[in-house]
Formats: sequence, C-alpha cells, structure tokens
Amino acid sequence: MPVFEETADARRDLRILPSRALPLPRLLPKASSSDDEREVVVIGAGPSGLFLTLLLARYGITGSSLLCLDSKPGTLKAGQADGLQPRTLEVFQSLGIASEIIAEGCHMEEVAFWNLSADDKSRIERTSFVPDVNVPARFPFEVTIHQGRIERILQENLSVYAPEDTIRRSHHFVNYTVDTVNHPEYPVQVNYEHELEDGSRVPGSVRTKYLVGGDGAHSRVRKSMGLSLEGETSDHIWGVCDFVADTDFPDIRNRSAVHSEAGSIMVIPREQIATGEYLTRLYVQVPGDVDAKTDRTTTPEDEKKNSSKKKRAEVTLEYIFQQANAVFAPYKINIKEGTVPDWYAAYQIGQRMAPKFSSRTPDGVDRIFIVGDACHTHSPKAGQGMNVSMMDSYNLSWKLAHSILGLTPRSADYSTDPVLETFEEERVDTARQLIEFDTKFSHMFSGKIGSGDSDTAGLTHDEFLKVFRDGSGFTSGCGLEYKSSKLVRAAQNSEKLIVSTGDPLYGALTPGRRVLNVELKRYADNTTRQLHDELPSSGRYRILVLTSTDLLDSSGQSQKALQACASIVNSHPAGSTDLVVLHPIKERFEWTQIPSEVKKLAEMRTYGLAKKEDAYDIYGIVKEEGAIAIVRPDGYVGILCRLSAPEVAKSYLRDCLVKI
Amino acid sequence: MPVFEETADARRDLRILPSRALPLPRLLPKASSSDDEREVVVIGAGPSGLFLTLLLARYGITGSSLLCLDSKPGTLKAGQADGLQPRTLEVFQSLGIASEIIAEGCHMEEVAFWNLSADDKSRIERTSFVPDVNVPARFPFEVTIHQGRIERILQENLSVYAPEDTIRRSHHFVNYTVDTVNHPEYPVQVNYEHELEDGSRVPGSVRTKYLVGGDGAHSRVRKSMGLSLEGETSDHIWGVCDFVADTDFPDIRNRSAVHSEAGSIMVIPREQIATGEYLTRLYVQVPGDVDAKTDRTTTPEDEKKNSSKKKRAEVTLEYIFQQANAVFAPYKINIKEGTVPDWYAAYQIGQRMAPKFSSRTPDGVDRIFIVGDACHTHSPKAGQGMNVSMMDSYNLSWKLAHSILGLTPRSADYSTDPVLETFEEERVDTARQLIEFDTKFSHMFSGKIGSGDSDTAGLTHDEFLKVFRDGSGFTSGCGLEYKSSKLVRAAQNSEKLIVSTGDPLYGALTPGRRVLNVELKRYADNTTRQLHDELPSSGRYRILVLTSTDLLDSSGQSQKALQACASIVNSHPAGSTDLVVLHPIKERFEWTQIPSEVKKLAEMRTYGLAKKEDAYDIYGIVKEEGAIAIVRPDGYVGILCRLSAPEVAKSYLRDCLVKI
Repeated sequence: MPVFEETADARRDLRILPSRALPLPRLLPKASSSDDEREVVVIGAGPSGLFLTLLLARYGITGSSLLCLDSKPGTLKAGQADGLQPRTLEVFQSLGIASEIIAEGCHMEEVAFWNLSADDKSRIERTSFVPDVNVPARFPFEVTIHQGRIERILQENLSVYAPEDTIRRSHHFVNYTVDTVNHPEYPVQVNYEHELEDGSRVPGSVRTKYLVGGDGAHSRVRKSMGLSLEGETSDHIWGVCDFVADTDFPDIRNRSAVHSEAGSIMVIPREQIATGEYLTRLYVQVPGDVDAKTDRTTTPEDEKKNSSKKKRAEVTLEYIFQQANAVFAPYKINIKEGTVPDWYAAYQIGQRMAPKFSSRTPDGVDRIFIVGDACHTHSPKAGQGMNVSMMDSYNLSWKLAHSILGLTPRSADYSTDPVLETFEEERVDTARQLIEFDTKFSHMFSGKIGSGDSDTAGLTHDEFLKVFRDGSGFTSGCGLEYKSSKLVRAAQNSEKLIVSTGDPLYGALTPGRRVLNVELKRYADNTTRQLHDELPSSGRYRILVLTSTDLLDSSGQSQKALQACASIVNSHPAGSTDLVVLHPIKERFEWTQIPSEVKKLAEMRTYGLAKKEDAYDIYGIVKEEGAIAIVRPDGYVGILCRLSAPEVAKSYLRDCLVKI
Repeated sequence: MPVFEETADARRDLRILPSRALPLPRLLPKASSSDDEREVVVIGAGPSGLFLTLLLARYGITGSSLLCLDSKPGTLKAGQADGLQPRTLEVFQSLGIASEIIAEGCHMEEVAFWNLSADDKSRIERTSFVPDVNVPARFPFEVTIHQGRIERILQENLSVYAPEDTIRRSHHFVNYTVDTVNHPEYPVQVNYEHELEDGSRVPGSVRTKYLVGGDGAHSRVRKSMGLSLEGETSDHIWGVCDFVADTDFPDIRNRSAVHSEAGSIMVIPREQIATGEYLTRLYVQVPGDVDAKTDRTTTPEDEKKNSSKKKRAEVTLEYIFQQANAVFAPYKINIKEGTVPDWYAAYQIGQRMAPKFSSRTPDGVDRIFIVGDACHTHSPKAGQGMNVSMMDSYNLSWKLAHSILGLTPRSADYSTDPVLETFEEERVDTARQLIEFDTKFSHMFSGKIGSGDSDTAGLTHDEFLKVFRDGSGFTSGCGLEYKSSKLVRAAQNSEKLIVSTGDPLYGALTPGRRVLNVELKRYADNTTRQLHDELPSSGRYRILVLTSTDLLDSSGQSQKALQACASIVNSHPAGSTDLVVLHPIKERFEWTQIPSEVKKLAEMRTYGLAKKEDAYDIYGIVKEEGAIAIVRPDGYVGILCRLSAPEVAKSYLRDCLVKI
C-alpha cells in the first residue's frame, strides 16, 4: 500500500492543459482599445482569414485587439479546396496543429500517369508512376482532407488563444473609410451589416489600425481599395465531384492524370470517412473550348451574358460520370451503391491577380492588406489555392504583429515600416510565379498528350513529366525563394557572406529559402529532435550558430562567435530572438568547456549531429568553417555569414528588429 | 474569378469532425438498460478506471450502458505518476491519442549513471550513458508528463464517444451486493454515497452486469470482494519533488541514477511548462532503514502506530534538498529562484498484490473485476505504475466488450466465458512479474554501488547495468509475453504451427507477444504506412496473411490461403475481424492477378515491403514460406501457423469469436 505524505502547489493544476505558444513581447502600449477600437480587423474566416487571425492571436494580438468578421452564418463551409502541400504541413507542424491532418488525411506520395495505349487506341494504359513530391521535405507527400476540417482545426486552436467572440459571423463587410486626422490611432473605420436571423441587416462599424481582407475572390475589401483581379478567363470548363467510387480502375487510390481520346481526368484520392469508406475527387474535363476573353472588368451583369454559364449548367452529375467512363475506358467508374456524392460542381477559372496587395492611408502607413483568393485566383489542378492563400497570411502575420507590438525599427514618426512593406514585395512576386506556373500547368492538363514521341496533340508524355517534375519545387511549396530585400540579404561578393555549397532545393542554407528540417541530437538530454520542432512559429528570430570543429578551443572562432551572438540576442527585447547552436563535435564535452552564455541562453537549443543524417552536409556548411544564419520568424533564411563575421548578423538584425 | 455551379450534400458537413473509431457489432440485444441499470459500472476515474471507461465506450458500450463513479469532486488530481513506457505509447497511438504526449512530453532516450569517483571518494563522476530502452519499439524512448494531463487527454477523447455524465464525481463507492435470482440481468447492486457541496452524503445505488474497481491501492471494491494486497512494506523511505532546477549537475536533463557515499538519487527530467522552463523530478533516498514487516493485514489503525510515519513527516522540502546536495557533491542543486516546487512528498512503498483480480457471482459468471493499483502496488523507480495499470484495463476492456456484445462463443446458458477468464490469468501473471522485477530493481536502487569491481556495498556498477538492460523488455512494456491459453496458442511440435526464426524481443512473430511495428508500403495507394496505424485498437481480430513469393501463382499456396482466410473473415460477424495482407513481391502486379476477395475485404489493408525495412525479416518469416498470424484486438499474436494450414487459424478464431 503506498504511504505518502505530500504537499502540492496549486499551479500544478495548470500543468494538465495543452501547451500554448508564448506571445511576443509588447513594447508599444496597447492604446485604449475597446470593443469599437481594434488593432486589427480581419474580413473573412476562410483559410486565409482564419489562419491570419489565429497567427495574430498566437503572437499576442488578442483579446479586444483582434476581430474577424465573416459574412456566413455558421462555421461549416462548402469549401472546394482539399490539398495541403508539404510546406503547408511543415508550417502547421510548427504550430502544433498538423497531427490530425497527417494522421487522418489522405497522403499522396506517387502520381500515376495514364495515356492512350500505344497498341490499342481505344483504351488507356499506365505510362508511369512518379513521386508526387520531388524535393526533400519533412513530410514528403501532399495531404488531401476536407477544407472545413482544416478550418475546424484552426478555429479550435484559435479558441486556446482568443475569446470566443473574436470571430463574428453573419457580418457583411460593406466598405471602409479613413480619417487619420480625428482618429490618428484607429484611422480606419470598417462599416458592416450584421444580418439577423430574420434576414434583416443592421448597420454597424468598428475602428481599427489595420484592416485585412481575406474575403475571397469577390473581395469587397479589395474593391474598397479600388483594385480588381487582372488576367484571363480560362477557355476550359471542368466538372468536379467528391464521392465514394465503385471502379475497377486500378489506380483510384493514387493521384492519377489520365489522358485519352475522350478527354482528360485528374483523380485525387481523399480521406477515409466515418463509414470507413474512402472519398475520391474526380476532375473531369468538359470537351470543347469556350470563348476566352481578356477580362479586367467582369461584373455580375457581364457574367450573366456569358454563354459559358449555360454550358456550365449543363455539367450535371450524370454528365460527369458519362464523360469519366468515356475517358476511363475500358475501366468503369460509378458512385458506390448506397452512397450519395458529397459535392459536385462545374467550374471555369482563369489565372488572375490583383496588382497590389496593400494600400496606404494619408498618414503614410500601409494599413489595408489583402490575402488569399482576394489577391489571386487560378485553377485547382496543382493543388495550390488554399496553400498559397494561407502562406500569404503566414507571411503577413508576424510582420504585422511586430509592427503593432513595436518590435520593428521605424522612423521617428512611426509612419513607414520597411519590414511590413516586404509583405507586398514577397507575396506579389509569389503570386506572379503562381499565375505563371498555373497557366502552364492547367493548359497542359487540358491538352491532349501524345502517346509516344509523335507530337500531334501538344506535349509528349515526357515533356509533361518534365513540367511536372520541374514544378515540384513550386507545387510542394518547398522551393519558394524570396528575393533580396531588407529581410533577405543574398550572398554577394563579400568575404564575410559565405555561400553554402550544394543545391538550395536540397537543403543548402540560402538566404530567401526556408530552412529544411534536419534530425539532430540535443546536447542537454541526448534526445533525437527535428529542427523544425525546435523553431516553432512563435514570431521570433533565431540566430543559428553552426559552430565549427574548433568549438572546444577557447580562443577559437566558434567560441568568439557564440559570445558575439549571445550578445546580439541580449541586445534585443527578451522573447524576440532565440539563440540556437549546432555543433559537429563527435566526442563528449561538458558545458564548462564552452562559453557559459550557451547554457544560459540555449541549454535546450544546442544540438549535435544525429546518427541518421549529417545536418552540416545537408546545409552545405563545411564543418571546419561553420556559419551563422539568421532565420526569420517564418523559417526563411534572412542572412548567412561567416562565423568570423557576427557583426554582419548583428547589422541585419538591427535593421529588422528594435534593440533595447 | 472562380466561376462555379455547385451542388453539395448535407452529410458533407460531417466530414469536418475528428475521426471516430467504429464500434463493435452488437449481437446480444441491450436489455432495457436505464439510468439505474448499466452494463458496466467502473469505480474510479484515475488512469486505469478512466482508460477502461474510454475503451469500453469506443468499443460500443456507451450511452446508458456505461457509468463511472469517482469519489473526488473534480477532474484535477494530484497524481504522482508521470512516466509512459514505449508500449503504452504504442497503445495510445493505436487509439489516436498519443500526439500531444509525444510532442510535448519529455523524452528519455538515455540514462546517465553517476557513481563515486574512483580517484576522489568525495565526489561523483559519470560512469556511463546507456540507452533507456534496449528493445525495438515504435517510440524508442519513455515519456514523462503530468498524470493529470494524461487524464485530461483520456477524458477529452471519452467525450467524443460517451455522454458527459458517464463520469460522475463526488460519488463514493460503499459496497456491492449480488442478487442473481430477482435480477438475473443486472445482478450486481452498487451502493454509493453522493457527496453534496455542503459535505453531506446522500446514499444511492445502481444495478449492473459487471463492476470494475479501478479505485486505487485502498480499493473498496477489492475489499468488498474480500481480497487484500499481500506482500511486504519496503524498508526504504524516499523523498520526491517536482520543481524547476538551478544546478550545475551536467545531466539534469537526462534520466540519471546517482549513487554516492551520502545515498542514492534518481533524476527524472520532465516536460516544459507554460513559462518555458522545464520541470525536474528528483527521487532522494532517505538514509537509514525503517523496520520492514510482512504485512497482510494493515489497517489504518496499524498505520498510525507505525513509526515510519513520523520519519516520513520529517522529510521536508529543506531535507530533500539538503540530502540532494550531499549526494550530488561537488555539484549544487536548488530550486530556481522565483519558482515554487509543484509538489513534494515522502513515500514508502512495498511490493504487494491481490491474489485474484476477479470474483464470480452465484450464477457462475465473473462479474466483478479490479484493475490498476487496486491489484498491485510497487515502487515508482522503474516507472511502471500508471503503465501496468492502464494495460490491465487495455486487456480487460475488449474481452468484457466482446462478452457483453455477444461476440464470445459461450455455453448454452451464457454463464462461463473462457475469453473473459483469460483477463485474470494474463494480468495476475503480469503483476507477479512486476512485483518480482520491482523488488529487485528498487532494492538495487536503494543499495550502494561499488565504484569498481570491489563489491563492498552490494552490486557492482556492471551488475547494476546488467539488471537495468535485462529489465528493459519488462520496463519498456514491449517484452511482455502472455502464456499459453485459449487466446495464445504457443507453437508446438506440430507441422502446421510454425516457429518464426529470430528473437521475439526483436520482432519475430511469437504467440503471446505484441506485433512489433514495421514500415510498409500500401499497395492501393503507394503510401508509406506504419503497421501499427493500420491495426488500431478497435476491438477487432486481424487475420494477418503474410503471403509467400508464390503470390501470383493462381494455384499456389498464397492464393489458397487468401481465399481460405477471406472465408474465415466472412464466417464471423461483420466488423469483428479484418483481413490484412502482406506480400514480399517486388514487381508491380494488378488486382486482377490475385483473388478478388482481397480487394473486396482488404483494398486498403494490403501492403508490400517498404524501402526502409523488410517486414518479413523483422518478423522472422521466410519469404518462400509465408505465414498466417491471428492478431488479437490488443495487438498480441494469438496464433501463428503455416500458409498451408488456414484451418488452424479458423479453429483458433472459432474458439474466441462467435460465428454467423
């Protein structure tokens, strides 16, 4: 029988709760924000708006500082997106919200290509299997799962950080007005209509410092900014259906691109549902072209006149399956008996984007932003939509939070914020790449593929494969490289800036690229760690010191660099920058052999090499040389410099982050 | 601008919810159970009682069938346990509830041993680092995390499957009475007192088919059964404290066993807390022996007389740290300034167990059970307590659910249930091993360790290490082997029963041992899967057909075995048995080349070998021979037979599971 005498402290009870990210430090006092005065108002609670709201709340913009208005009455949405890229999974993991998605979503590791049989033009045959993701990533697959489920996960996490009424439903954004003279603190007035249960609408307004439109392709925030999407309407109509399949097509559980005489199909396997069955999504091309038109000024009236609408309306469920069976021949595909399709639709989407993603108020401050579909629309073929949209928010959120909290160094009058300005630079460039890639990719998918080297119908299969493989850096989200800016200092011909060796796509540390995950062994507790888990998305910069083999030499470069970097950390507000130390030493050493600042600042962030892989090799860093990298709060390398040049790192950080 | 025409089905909204395990089929009608008549009543909502309640609810014993009464008023508990073994992690993972624990708990991968310095007897020095887990496991580490947090996770998952009032707090179990004559369906009357907020108690009762006591070391259910714990009270007193450490002891973040002239200490690193700091647990031996006594009849009155109590009361916080500093010399250890210890205690625990874990009512049915600390108590040194307790419940739950739902084959009068009877056989045997191991282990820890081969004080360090390593099969939970029984058919000298080659501890399939996790490649979708994720704890048996290299030979052994096993699956109730197929074939083949039953029954449960590892080699199965294994609902192998002898598998399953 256990016999105890015990004493417990009440705070022990707190230990049972899920972990929360620590907020960023707040240096600027919160002006008396009230229910009518918010620091940020987000319009739209779809993936981009909800993700932005969540991130801001986690960084410390919470309580009465934050408000999100959504026009829909409930949380359930008939969203169409279902694909998450490897990079999005990495970001979700860095927030501790990836596990349900990875455990229960459908993984796509390979893609099957089916084309006309060379021997028998009446049937299709498998041409090849290729990896779905061709670049290294922590999660080397895409995941498909219902968009509403992703939104539920985001919202559950939001409830840990923000009051329940942070998101207000049935609130229709009308427009915004600006008054920097009478309301210098909260110059943006957001006007909305609250829709009551009887359908009547009550006008209301709220003042804010910053307004972000995550309100979709028909964004009213964008309209209020005087912007519209520019680009072309696609000439192809596609039908799409989510259902439980009954088929003898062998690769129904693989992502499959099928091209036959009758047209094109994309099979997207989906997650298991409550019955134990598995969903399938089918994209079915509707044969024949629709008049394409360059269309910068489409209004609902124009749409109604458009003959495409009639054609889309003809895409019935019966039509989708009739066409699918024609393409799949000799295989058959049908809706499983006793089941009803979840959803089907016909769509026609061009590649279009807004020319700007932000708008400045008369006080010279960028106060209005758009993210997600409000910025760019494109075809769903490459599974980009929800990902690029959420990554817009991921890029904006920490810059906006730093600006609001007073962490960015600014001019005396606090007007311009060069860090915040990089949001537009970086994401407009990304959106342009997206539009270009999607134009190529979706046209390719709508065309026919030759079965051999005869090129009668456009691309050969090999050319198609090449576009698919080359696009993997982009489609995985892992190949993105932000251009040089205040936040990205590309290596120049300076002896202090070193270029790592190796391919950036395969992990070589490169300014503008995300840090690839590596496995490490933590010094303090001898446990195996994934570096990505050690750099959670908490809004902090990280000074990553990759010490050299001279680590234990008390007058060597490594120890000097560690001391210098510790002093950089201490020169910025507590909680804004973390020191992270990697070392390539094989022998056991003690804390007393390295500068005491390391244990003090980075006891649980000091790592040696793991058995499984060599982080220095992957990062392209020579062990005898070492390096210092500053990693931005979003996981992208800001600068990479020699161990002997910590002043370069110091100067970079002084430009991005306020000092104490 | 995306242009859509769409149609959605309402059930699509269900897709956003977290996945739920499917319940087992119910063959026996639920007798008119009401609020006063339950199929199962569980006493105690600690780890064992709560885990049992959760498992029963997941298997389909839910709603008004299930009730759990706990004497405490709230969910927060000052629980002392904090360690989860690799096997417990595997089981949690099989229920989809491991991710928070693995992501946020403290991992222990290595153990540091510190002993007196050979050169300087006034100080300790590190003798060695050894792996904490010495056998293969899906998660090759132990995790420490607050017990209350584990209970919170269990309870959150319970809320997905059972109504909120399934657990009733402030309900004190008094005793039970049995009346099989007037109440043949619900013969057990559970008498309790409901404690109101003013402290007054209102008597009440509920009738049940089965009563399970998970009510701890002082179990009243056990007392009502007329049983008591038998064994000895330890002669050692230990102090224990959870706190944030300020120390220069180098291995404070490692599990460390420290032996010096001044005594023994065990360091258990713990999880990070909300402040960003990390907890440490320290077990500190109180020098000097206390009178040991064999004690089968201890009553609270006896306890009061015991002089140990006075000595335990002397173990103050100051004392613990004074003694810790004496042992740690020359290192210092203190409570970090500005923090308050979570908890400290002095304890003295012997190794004791109940002689029986079940009790039969006059109708010949085993209706009363005990699990967890109600069955066995022992020292916390080897981190066993919470694990063995929850595994008692894991063993009992599916057998009880099968019995209640009518899935076990029974005598005509439904009295005896040989499957359910194996609970006591298997878990009494496990408890005995636990008691034996813990006696050895904890005595060893309380003794002094010689610094070299001089054996003045008991074990040498090398002997200590050997016990530690040899115990790993047990302490990890992964080496457990259930003995031969109706549920475990050990290989005999029969040509039909094959013995796999290799060490069972390293994965060779062996009746009575759990199936080790292996990585596989799923045939249907070419994704990498972990076999454990494909065998979730859903209460089902699995027929695991490891086909041989002749898989594609339509008259070969493999295809015959697949057909035979498919027919076995179809001869049992739908949802009670799954077919799982492994194959060793390297070349691509099509569904049409293997029996159609495989796609029908196991489309998403057919696997080839992964690049990373060879499942056949790990399982000790010759690829040219193959094998059939039946895996019990708890993941242990029930029987292993030749591919040519599916009738052996059939006969095993007929003995355990009702046929249709």
